[in-house]
Amino acid sequence: MIRASLVIIGDEILSGRTEDKNLSYLAKWLGKLGIDICEVRIVLDVERDIINAVNNLRKKYDYVFTTGGIGPTHDDITTDSIAKAFGVEARVDVNALEKMKDFLNGKELTEPLLKMLKIPEGGELIYSPATKAPGYKIGNVFVMAGIPKIMQGMLEGMYDYLEKGDVVHSKSLDIMVGESFFAEDLALIQNKFKNVSVGSYPFSRDGLYGATIVIRSTQESDLASCESLVKDLIAKL
Amino acid sequence: MIRASLVIIGDEILSGRTEDKNLSYLAKWLGKLGIDICEVRIVLDVERDIINAVNNLRKKYDYVFTTGGIGPTHDDITTDSIAKAFGVEARVDVNALEKMKDFLNGKELTEPLLKMLKIPEGGELIYSPATKAPGYKIGNVFVMAGIPKIMQGMLEGMYDYLEKGDVVHSKSLDIMVGESFFAEDLALIQNKFKNVSVGSYPFSRDGLYGATIVIRSTQESDLASCESLVKDLIAKL
Repeated sequence: MIRASLVIIGDEILSGRTEDKNLSYLAKWLGKLGIDICEVRIVLDVERDIINAVNNLRKKYDYVFTTGGIGPTHDDITTDSIAKAFGVEARVDVNALEKMKDFLNGKELTEPLLKMLKIPEGGELIYSPATKAPGYKIGNVFVMAGIPKIMQGMLEGMYDYLEKGDVVHSKSLDIMVGESFFAEDLALIQNKFKNVSVGSYPFSRDGLYGATIVIRSTQESDLASCESLVKDLIAKL
Repeated sequence: MIRASLVIIGDEILSGRTEDKNLSYLAKWLGKLGIDICEVRIVLDVERDIINAVNNLRKKYDYVFTTGGIGPTHDDITTDSIAKAFGVEARVDVNALEKMKDFLNGKELTEPLLKMLKIPEGGELIYSPATKAPGYKIGNVFVMAGIPKIMQGMLEGMYDYLEKGDVVHSKSLDIMVGESFFAEDLALIQNKFKNVSVGSYPFSRDGLYGATIVIRSTQESDLASCESLVKDLIAKL
């Protein structure tokens, strides 16, 4: 099992102004590589908070991903914070500078543009087709933009760096009664399969309660046997 | 400033299957009471992870809210975990039991239903109009359901328990150029106002880059002066 975590950096997510769209996309993309997101922290644009989250998580997990705070404005402090977390300086990267100059083709290279070309010493650039301002990898930490389109473009650049694990297969089955009517039978099914994780996720639709039963496993034969028992349970109810 | 944190409990959020809808709603609701969410952790349905998150955050923040994992199925382990975090037992609450019996009106009180009536010793019940299974408050921790409709209903039950702070007022202004074109001017505006937080949140729409400038303050007069400078900046560009 390869275990990862995500640090979402940004006041706007915590204030409720913006709903994060990156976790769901990243989790599904990593899931296909056999990498599971096991923890997420959402933190303010505050240096100490970013440093604490990154330093804590990079010891606990195989990989840490971050989104947000690598733009050109005064409230973009991710790169300086990551550099401090690793105890290194953030500097304008020579290759990133060349690429930006080519792109600008004689237009002015302003201070805000330069700021986006800084990365912590020892970092390796990761580009998105959507921008000339790179993300980067340092140690087991991958630093990405917060705008979903740019973040998604950076994933391809990370692919080669990531170790791949056993892919988790899953099946989802809806059941249109409240959870209390099948909780005991479902627990019996879970107990039969050590290699399958059986989850029940309740919902309400049009005033009726139901649940989605999600079964997940790296072992396809166990998953099929488990699915058959869940289907029997649904048919019984 | 009253500072809060949220623990979102659930494998389904971390796998990307379900997008969380509770953070945004809760943050806005608390914002109106002058309470700011300063950190969020999303954790697996794993006892140790829940305990660590809750025990860490209840020391750091005035309030901790949790969502998810208080249903009747085997993967609902929030209440047992919270009880362990506080070093107490989880027991069926007498008042919650009475209310459920009234509701059932002679129908069978099954084990799964009983499970939802357990709360940690010392907890106080918090009901949602949408269910007879309560949430609860223990110490500075508020434990709520994960289904948005039920969670939202529990907020009214929490209102009286919460200390209210100075309400943060905010203004949002869109600017239709890339951030690097105004980053330096915006930093000058931020430097003029100690009581206002000035944030820039970039977006791309139809292939064009822009940003929303969000200014936030408890001081309405400072906010108005700052807004006027931001409007001048937008007009200039």
